[in-house]
Amino acid sequence: MLYKSGFTIKQILSRHINHADRVAERVQAQAIVDFKDLDNSVDLICICVTDANIMQVANQLQGYNGLVVHTSGTVALSALQTVNRFGVFYPLQTFTKTVAVDFKSTPILVEANTPEDEALLENLARRVSTNVEVLSSAKREKLHVAAVIANNFTNHLLAKAYNYCHENNLPFHVLNALITETARKAISENPNQNQTGPAARKDLQTIQRHLEIITDLELKKLYQTLSESIIKSHETKL
Amino acid sequence: MLYKSGFTIKQILSRHINHADRVAERVQAQAIVDFKDLDNSVDLICICVTDANIMQVANQLQGYNGLVVHTSGTVALSALQTVNRFGVFYPLQTFTKTVAVDFKSTPILVEANTPEDEALLENLARRVSTNVEVLSSAKREKLHVAAVIANNFTNHLLAKAYNYCHENNLPFHVLNALITETARKAISENPNQNQTGPAARKDLQTIQRHLEIITDLELKKLYQTLSESIIKSHETKL
Repeated sequence: MLYKSGFTIKQILSRHINHADRVAERVQAQAIVDFKDLDNSVDLICICVTDANIMQVANQLQGYNGLVVHTSGTVALSALQTVNRFGVFYPLQTFTKTVAVDFKSTPILVEANTPEDEALLENLARRVSTNVEVLSSAKREKLHVAAVIANNFTNHLLAKAYNYCHENNLPFHVLNALITETARKAISENPNQNQTGPAARKDLQTIQRHLEIITDLELKKLYQTLSESIIKSHETKL
Repeated sequence: MLYKSGFTIKQILSRHINHADRVAERVQAQAIVDFKDLDNSVDLICICVTDANIMQVANQLQGYNGLVVHTSGTVALSALQTVNRFGVFYPLQTFTKTVAVDFKSTPILVEANTPEDEALLENLARRVSTNVEVLSSAKREKLHVAAVIANNFTNHLLAKAYNYCHENNLPFHVLNALITETARKAISENPNQNQTGPAARKDLQTIQRHLEIITDLELKKLYQTLSESIIKSHETKL
């Protein structure tokens, strides 16, 4: 992301030299495996490890004078407080290895322990993306919940629909226009206003019929829970 | 849809003259309220009423010699069997009054009681959309279940995420790129492969933390049910 936006990457540190080598080669950097080989003159160190390991890595960077950031949606800024200058650089997007992402439109949420470093991170992020916001740790953690709902949960439903279509020999691709339109509408207006379907109409007969058609018990449970939730939402509105 | 694709609409029949007038004016047709005023020389009559009323309307059209279609995703072709020539013309898309839809990419599923009328409907549909399939009533009903999952349920989750953001004073629009990307990925590859997030990683600590953050009991229940379902799906795969 930073490399593709024109920044120079000096070093890639990983516990595994193979992994460090592979990444380093892609971004024309030096591969290292030991913290003592870190170049102390670099402006920024990005900690890109699983949430549980962020603090441990930060503890190894106590002597370093540059800015240290992590890239997690959930871990608080304070997890880095053992270093001198610290911040968060969180790209809010779903990344999978096989799909290229448009960084320009990817929101980046930044935060730092001083206003100067916050401004610095904000400027840096603006060189990568047109969509940058300064957000506190508390708000970032809460926003991550919304991201889980908007991506993980909707994708799981789409995966379930995909499997259901395959099991019933139905063309999943016929749903493509519907899936695209659902997303387009949800971001262009309040999705509460876009709710349609049997549950929104409280059409219990169709709901019952659909539950008979679905054989996968897990999907049946999801269908029931979501239909009930839609019915409740609509009753509350009345 | 048909009017915008260049077809001539002769009459709009509705129980309420105001409604008939309003629609008829938009498509340059005659507004009528009585079945006995129907022009028997038209080629096609579209029944666009709620599912429960389709059969009742069809019963009024027994003397008519042209093709009669309904536009429902769930009602079987046989609901129209009291008329001479009958079929289904089902556009699989989510329609709300305020948002214009691109008909060209909207899939249209057709079916008729004779191969001749099936071919006729298929040709007619191809003048409206580039995405036409002949599908049996049984398959159309099953596909409607998938459409409910892919649209109604995902939209409900997005509505819940929207409300959650508003309640917590978080910028929902920051999720726009994520929502768009989720849809884009789901239609370009098997969405089972795109699953990320705490549940897919079985990160019970983050799930627990998110459940603490969520105050809306309904959303808490959805979060729990969907996370459990994702965990189960991933365990099955191992």
